[in-house]
Amino acid sequence: MEQVFHKITIDTTGQGLYDFTNKTISWLKKQSINNGMLNINILHTSASLVVQENADPDVLYDLKNFFDKLAPMNNKLYKHTTEGKDDMPAHIKSALTNNQLTLSLKDKKLMLGTWQGLYLFEHRLEKHKRTLAHHLIGE
Amino acid sequence: MEQVFHKITIDTTGQGLYDFTNKTISWLKKQSINNGMLNINILHTSASLVVQENADPDVLYDLKNFFDKLAPMNNKLYKHTTEGKDDMPAHIKSALTNNQLTLSLKDKKLMLGTWQGLYLFEHRLEKHKRTLAHHLIGE
Amino acid sequence: MEQVFHKITIDTTGQGLYDFTNKTISWLKKQSINNGMLNINILHTSASLVVQENADPDVLYDLKNFFDKLAPMNNKLYKHTTEGKDDMPAHIKSALTNNQLTLSLKDKKLMLGTWQGLYLFEHRLEKHKRTLAHHLIGE
Repeated sequence: MEQVFHKITIDTTGQGLYDFTNKTISWLKKQSINNGMLNINILHTSASLVVQENADPDVLYDLKNFFDKLAPMNNKLYKHTTEGKDDMPAHIKSALTNNQLTLSLKDKKLMLGTWQGLYLFEHRLEKHKRTLAHHLIGE
Repeated sequence: MEQVFHKITIDTTGQGLYDFTNKTISWLKKQSINNGMLNINILHTSASLVVQENADPDVLYDLKNFFDKLAPMNNKLYKHTTEGKDDMPAHIKSALTNNQLTLSLKDKKLMLGTWQGLYLFEHRLEKHKRTLAHHLIGE
Repeated sequence: MEQVFHKITIDTTGQGLYDFTNKTISWLKKQSINNGMLNINILHTSASLVVQENADPDVLYDLKNFFDKLAPMNNKLYKHTTEGKDDMPAHIKSALTNNQLTLSLKDKKLMLGTWQGLYLFEHRLEKHKRTLAHHLIGE
């Protein structure tokens, strides 16, 4: 059994979905593990992770838009407002999606459906540096 | 350490929750691994996975109904409409639930609460063949 | 490869988020595994798990409040009403958040961001005893 850890940093420039599939796959290719479980954790609570369609960019736009309407930036709704109007909605969107994804590696290939991509879902308006911890266990 | 991979196919006939607990347990029983982690990934982005109550079927009805109201089939809300009025709501419902579940196997028994079952949550109206990748790691 | 299993019980006294980070970390410290994957499953479908901000308690209040508005206790909306007005909303909130979290242990340290804590999200009004199954695999 082997284990490897790695951190990926993604620079975000406002709300939206950022595809990091290739960054993860590039790293996996350099490892000596052929089969194993990959755990990806985002070390923040105002951005999150989703597996989504990688074909039509309109899907990503609609997702961003839907979550914005579901958890609006309206200070009257929240007690936690000191970190900006987008902070509490960001925590809510994080709770509604995922902080972590566990994926499977088989024969050195990440098991994803044809139309699936890995996305960082940024919920804050300003620029951020987001860290995604990768942990692969297998052999 | 051992690893086994397996794919389960589920035929869906419209929106709703499909219990696949027994399919997963039947497969686990045939494996030589007694203790381990089981990762289940759905290889699609318009259907998802949830652990839910297995007692009252009304819970499943209400869940389907709630998500339908939360992400309505109303083309005016979405830019992504070319794949049908149910496609963008399906992606949203997928983001709101799970693409993947990680469960634990102890003494050859899948650790689930008394009232917990494993469900595929189909979000499309038409018939679909859904693939659930199973990956068990342990010994 | 080693595996250890453990159950943590949390007494809840109504809706809200209960921090169990220290309970998990205390247990991890006693184990001989230095690096591994930790899978935490809640064995119930009317309470759930989230990773959330551990700094401002207002975030926890706003989260509870948001989910209460999103899935209101209004019997007219649901068929499943026999277990109380808070039961069906609890199942919905459970589906919208997580039944399970997979985290990584590196050099005996649970990988969490500076502002991240582990929370049990109780969705029922009455007192409950909630069981969180912990499963650590590694070496």
